[in-house]
Amino acid sequence: MSGAFTAVDVIRVKRDGGVLSDAQIDWVVDAYTRGVVADEQMSALAMAILLRGMTAPEIARWTAAMIASGERLDLSAVDRPTVDKHSTGGVGDKITLPLTPLVAACGAAVPQLSGRGLGHTGGTLDKLESIPGWRAALSNDEFIGQLRDVGAVICAAGTGLAPADRKLYALRDVTGTVEAIPLIASSIMSKKIAEGTGSLVLDVKVGSGAFMKSVEHARELARTMVELGGAHGVRTVALLTDMSTPLGLAIGNGVEVTESVEVLAGGGPADVVELTLALAREMLDAAGLPDADPAAALRDGRAMDSWRAMIRAQGGDPDAPMPTANEVEVVTAPADGFVASVDAYAMGVAAWRLGAGRARKEDPVSVPAGVVLHKRPGDPVRAGEPLYELRAERADLLPAALAEAATAVRLSAAAPAATPLVIERIG
Amino acid sequence: MSGAFTAVDVIRVKRDGGVLSDAQIDWVVDAYTRGVVADEQMSALAMAILLRGMTAPEIARWTAAMIASGERLDLSAVDRPTVDKHSTGGVGDKITLPLTPLVAACGAAVPQLSGRGLGHTGGTLDKLESIPGWRAALSNDEFIGQLRDVGAVICAAGTGLAPADRKLYALRDVTGTVEAIPLIASSIMSKKIAEGTGSLVLDVKVGSGAFMKSVEHARELARTMVELGGAHGVRTVALLTDMSTPLGLAIGNGVEVTESVEVLAGGGPADVVELTLALAREMLDAAGLPDADPAAALRDGRAMDSWRAMIRAQGGDPDAPMPTANEVEVVTAPADGFVASVDAYAMGVAAWRLGAGRARKEDPVSVPAGVVLHKRPGDPVRAGEPLYELRAERADLLPAALAEAATAVRLSAAAPAATPLVIERIG
Repeated sequence: MSGAFTAVDVIRVKRDGGVLSDAQIDWVVDAYTRGVVADEQMSALAMAILLRGMTAPEIARWTAAMIASGERLDLSAVDRPTVDKHSTGGVGDKITLPLTPLVAACGAAVPQLSGRGLGHTGGTLDKLESIPGWRAALSNDEFIGQLRDVGAVICAAGTGLAPADRKLYALRDVTGTVEAIPLIASSIMSKKIAEGTGSLVLDVKVGSGAFMKSVEHARELARTMVELGGAHGVRTVALLTDMSTPLGLAIGNGVEVTESVEVLAGGGPADVVELTLALAREMLDAAGLPDADPAAALRDGRAMDSWRAMIRAQGGDPDAPMPTANEVEVVTAPADGFVASVDAYAMGVAAWRLGAGRARKEDPVSVPAGVVLHKRPGDPVRAGEPLYELRAERADLLPAALAEAATAVRLSAAAPAATPLVIERIG
Repeated sequence: MSGAFTAVDVIRVKRDGGVLSDAQIDWVVDAYTRGVVADEQMSALAMAILLRGMTAPEIARWTAAMIASGERLDLSAVDRPTVDKHSTGGVGDKITLPLTPLVAACGAAVPQLSGRGLGHTGGTLDKLESIPGWRAALSNDEFIGQLRDVGAVICAAGTGLAPADRKLYALRDVTGTVEAIPLIASSIMSKKIAEGTGSLVLDVKVGSGAFMKSVEHARELARTMVELGGAHGVRTVALLTDMSTPLGLAIGNGVEVTESVEVLAGGGPADVVELTLALAREMLDAAGLPDADPAAALRDGRAMDSWRAMIRAQGGDPDAPMPTANEVEVVTAPADGFVASVDAYAMGVAAWRLGAGRARKEDPVSVPAGVVLHKRPGDPVRAGEPLYELRAERADLLPAALAEAATAVRLSAAAPAATPLVIERIG
């Protein structure tokens, strides 16, 4: 290996608890992107980073190197203020669907580059692909054109943005190095900064259904990302929000689109509306539009108009009916009482087993499959009343999902204490 | 990936500081050997092992799994007690060359499977290949036959012994995971146990020229290996020995063979003789021959006879002259005084730069290249007297080696305190 460094030199520094120099970070990220540093070397470094950590300047440089590995979009042709949102991923988290057109309806432009689901958390693109004709792939020109004309766009990130992250993300997934906060933060922020957004609101999930199981870890991740955004001129705010319970009643692809449309129509589950409005207010504030009234835009149909325009612009039919599942199994309450809790992780796994998620990147996902809750934590229930239903395209997928879902719901004699949805604001 | 485990499951357990189960260890070592676990997954696990450590039962199971990845030789056809020696590697460490025939001359059989050098430490096979005609590769039948007939054999380990270790060793070398004590111990011991020796003496080096820079680390490695040997029925003893100074006067390939022959002839540097005899006594003791007198065997020519038989059995000519170097540079003392220290690492690097070692596995090594010391620590010296000489096949290799060697030698006005060669015995 030629050059100023070798991979082993760089790995050893981090392994032994040292701080990587700017030049070492620039070199290793670039050399990995070019294939000069091998996968087995980068995975050893990723594990050393996970166990040894990184200083704030190291994370900033690592993020800058990942941005520099590809192109950075120029959104100056868009005359509205740009603001994006990122969620660290949860169960039933369809918030991007109503939020993006809602914020656009209030005067900002939302350049939302999204991903697909893997494991128990769903992917925004998978959900939108439930809509007949809708396509996730846009060219950079199409992306900027739609942002200018409609103000709202949700599409797949092009391969030109942060290719180092694309490669590293796939590697981390198979080497047990996903959970490193410096790597999570730099992965998210490199893509968001490269996409060119002027400001950014982060929804950092905490709880069983999230990557971050504790508030302390979520707070550390949020702070790291808020600092990274600031260092790159992207005004960034984070909300820590609860992900111990699924968001809303629907978990799946088509069922989450349906629930999102209910919210855009001025209805929908209270928690989905609450979080959509909380994030919309933060985004509009960050975009310099503090006087906008997103609640009014949900009530008066402007958000729905924006949604329909956004879906149509990408070839989708906003009026097409969602397909129904062949197999539906309704689970009822064994006794009177209250729903004490619905575990997000277990319900996410149940939906995944029903076909809503994928085990491998190349797997397809089912449109109608998923879980629909009839009751949420705090709701009273009588013996024999439906608690939730499971939907699938094939009956053989039901037993494993039923077993998983059965572990998710706990009943109690007394009403449980309410827990806040938005835990903390960092910014 | 099918099977009871996935690589990510196993990596996560160790990453989070847990203890791997026997079944997890068996699976991951076997799956890695078969290519089901990828290099980038094993390197992440190796880094997690390096930083999190392993319990004694984990190391024992890991070693057993590496042994089980290949064949285990049966030396029952050899009617003498078998005893082997392993050194963790140092500068000027030619001890295997005189020691193997010496112990054979005293009644034991020594089944020495050796390796090649990489970096600043030399390899036993590279040294012996300085002898015209000598060949390192023997079949298992040739190996056992020579052990029975001559009692002494030094050859390359076949690919059938611990193939998991062969693959993992190459991976560790490029991923900064060489220095993990559980992996060093299991690597050494899996090969030695698989070779079938009845007992084993370990020379664990400590100091600048060794992998282990501190006595504490060397002691931990030695204890781990002694326990592993015992657990597999191989009586194992370890000596911690000093490697802050090169062993003897010669560092290189041909020059170390020449020095070894001097020892076998009853002469040679005092430190080489001392360590050879100390290890020979431990080996003969471990082999159940405590009354053997290795010092007498050096004096009376039996060791030399054994050497000549061993070299001839592998096609070598023990009487062939060693080639001389085209380029010789003698460095003299700038002032009167004493040699305070000769740094093993720096002299090892100097010899490597002269061509005695290799940077990559596929590189050839030079036979005549190396360093020959004229003075050792504690020796008095007068201004203008030779301190050491550098030998190379090409003049362009001299300047970098001269610069490196110049940092190695320190003179002092007073004689330095003597330091013991054998620091500690563990067993």
